[in-house]
Amino acid sequence: MSLYKVTIIGSGNWGSVVAKLAAVNTLKYPSLFDYKVYLYVYEEIVEGQKLSEIINTTHVNVKYLKGHILPDNIVAIPDLFKACVGSDILVFVLPIQFIPNVCYQLRYRVKKTAIAMTMIKGFNVEDGRLSLISNTIRRELNVPCAALMGANIAEGVIREEFCEATIGCNDLQHSEIFKKLFETKYFRIRCVPDEETVEMCGALKNVIALAAGLVDGSRAGSQNTKATIIRLGFVEMIEFCKRYFPNTRLETFFESCAIADLIASSYGGRNRKVAEYFANEPEKTLAELEEEMLQGQKLQGPITAANIYSILERESEVEKFPIFRAVHLTMIKKIPVSEFMLCVQNHPQHSIL
Amino acid sequence: MSLYKVTIIGSGNWGSVVAKLAAVNTLKYPSLFDYKVYLYVYEEIVEGQKLSEIINTTHVNVKYLKGHILPDNIVAIPDLFKACVGSDILVFVLPIQFIPNVCYQLRYRVKKTAIAMTMIKGFNVEDGRLSLISNTIRRELNVPCAALMGANIAEGVIREEFCEATIGCNDLQHSEIFKKLFETKYFRIRCVPDEETVEMCGALKNVIALAAGLVDGSRAGSQNTKATIIRLGFVEMIEFCKRYFPNTRLETFFESCAIADLIASSYGGRNRKVAEYFANEPEKTLAELEEEMLQGQKLQGPITAANIYSILERESEVEKFPIFRAVHLTMIKKIPVSEFMLCVQNHPQHSIL
Repeated sequence: MSLYKVTIIGSGNWGSVVAKLAAVNTLKYPSLFDYKVYLYVYEEIVEGQKLSEIINTTHVNVKYLKGHILPDNIVAIPDLFKACVGSDILVFVLPIQFIPNVCYQLRYRVKKTAIAMTMIKGFNVEDGRLSLISNTIRRELNVPCAALMGANIAEGVIREEFCEATIGCNDLQHSEIFKKLFETKYFRIRCVPDEETVEMCGALKNVIALAAGLVDGSRAGSQNTKATIIRLGFVEMIEFCKRYFPNTRLETFFESCAIADLIASSYGGRNRKVAEYFANEPEKTLAELEEEMLQGQKLQGPITAANIYSILERESEVEKFPIFRAVHLTMIKKIPVSEFMLCVQNHPQHSIL
Repeated sequence: MSLYKVTIIGSGNWGSVVAKLAAVNTLKYPSLFDYKVYLYVYEEIVEGQKLSEIINTTHVNVKYLKGHILPDNIVAIPDLFKACVGSDILVFVLPIQFIPNVCYQLRYRVKKTAIAMTMIKGFNVEDGRLSLISNTIRRELNVPCAALMGANIAEGVIREEFCEATIGCNDLQHSEIFKKLFETKYFRIRCVPDEETVEMCGALKNVIALAAGLVDGSRAGSQNTKATIIRLGFVEMIEFCKRYFPNTRLETFFESCAIADLIASSYGGRNRKVAEYFANEPEKTLAELEEEMLQGQKLQGPITAANIYSILERESEVEKFPIFRAVHLTMIKKIPVSEFMLCVQNHPQHSIL
């Protein structure tokens, strides 16, 4: 059997960490994987030098993952086609807005037997309907696409702190390959045959993390209140998945992609942090805070909240999801932060005996 | 119809807060409840005066809930029998070790039509078997017994910060009465017909809160690691309930009594806090830390962990619950804190594909 060739598409901080995990495992399983891991780098000039060249010579991603030496079997390539040609495993881990163009460039140019994976935490709205990133990849490249999500804030994973991830993959053989490619002693993986739910959880939890940040920032309550908002948000995540993906499995919500990622993001993630400041800086716009706080990175939560809102509005179901609704309207300043809590006090959950 | 007479048995900080909730609602529903709420106070002398008299004259529980004025329709009574005679609703909210004696004193002396509720977060082991507090109450007093649990750290509830609670009650009519007795605008209640699970969650989450504290204290990892421990602990809570209460409902774990209380306790509760110090003070015993940190209160988590361990050991099932096991062995200093994380890295959850 020929060896699986692996390409990571995207070299931000999470992409670089993922490349490290893969590069460790291609060495661990030499009879399964080609030992080189190809990393597509969107070329940038950093202090007069090309980022791809810096990575290939110093093995440090000086722009997005300073201070960490990456395995030297990672090969950075600034040409998308060259990075992906002949690859058996394509891992998408780049900002959501680049996906259409990247898929367009790769059309008819990837191996027919390739398998793909998305690690992107978001989804699109096409013609008013929810469209998963994995669906775009499947449709454009004509390959199967799994999803990896979990409580995986990049800084913790690169420090090799113990954590887990969930792979949503409906094909058992592909699950085995993906698990071998990414699992390490400190990064444990569970595979579940529920691709859509795993992918959706990664997107939806960012909205609840914003809600948690608004509670923190507005000092609307202590641990009880925050835990309540996280729980009600979790219930909305489940109801939303059930509504739009009828095959969703309740068990999946107990996996790292769901409950653990929700907790980690609601206490430690960047959506929570920016929302906390947002609640305290009424004169500043979200865009201003992003620029001040995120060094060029963008928040996914507000975009996801807007997408959810537009989908729910089209179906006249906004009222069933008070937290999703209140987060979106608060973040676009249609309601003041002080009203955020009022919106959730009469959650439909409470009208049930 | 005669009015329901209500007695709260126990006047610690949570008992006092619960008495306030009830006292507000007996006034709100005058056609349902006797407006007086009777509060059994274990008599203590505070600065030369009887605690029950202080409460009845100043309406402040100066010992356990300083700085908060309680409704004046709360009547403190230091005699257990007098507090309970003729009562229709008996709410048990006192330290677990007092339950056998209190039930013994009340045998044959409560109304035959009375209904009971436990808010005690723990369980007993009798003849090596798990025995719920509600079972003791049912057996000794021959009345039905529901449970109220949730993300309800007392200090937040007394400040009227928004939160929720779950009532586990298998009788729909009783559920309605209890909801009316305790629900307020800021303290929302859901009732579920799953008494045992609601009660068990209140006890089990304290053990996972200890685990969260050990992670915090030993700096074994960041948000990812902590979220992972909470998730794996949550899965053990579910598996434990399934194993010992086969009728447990998976939906109940999404309620405030389960996921929300687990989160609140793992970030804000006293078990978490003491475990964090415990990890950093290897020369101190748990008893010393309790005395230094808790002003006379006792931790329930270590007792529950020991109870779980003894039950699992009897059934040779300890290995299936690595977090429950590791928490108990760490808290009794049979394994050093540094080994705590090792115990959970090979959790059986990870051996599944």
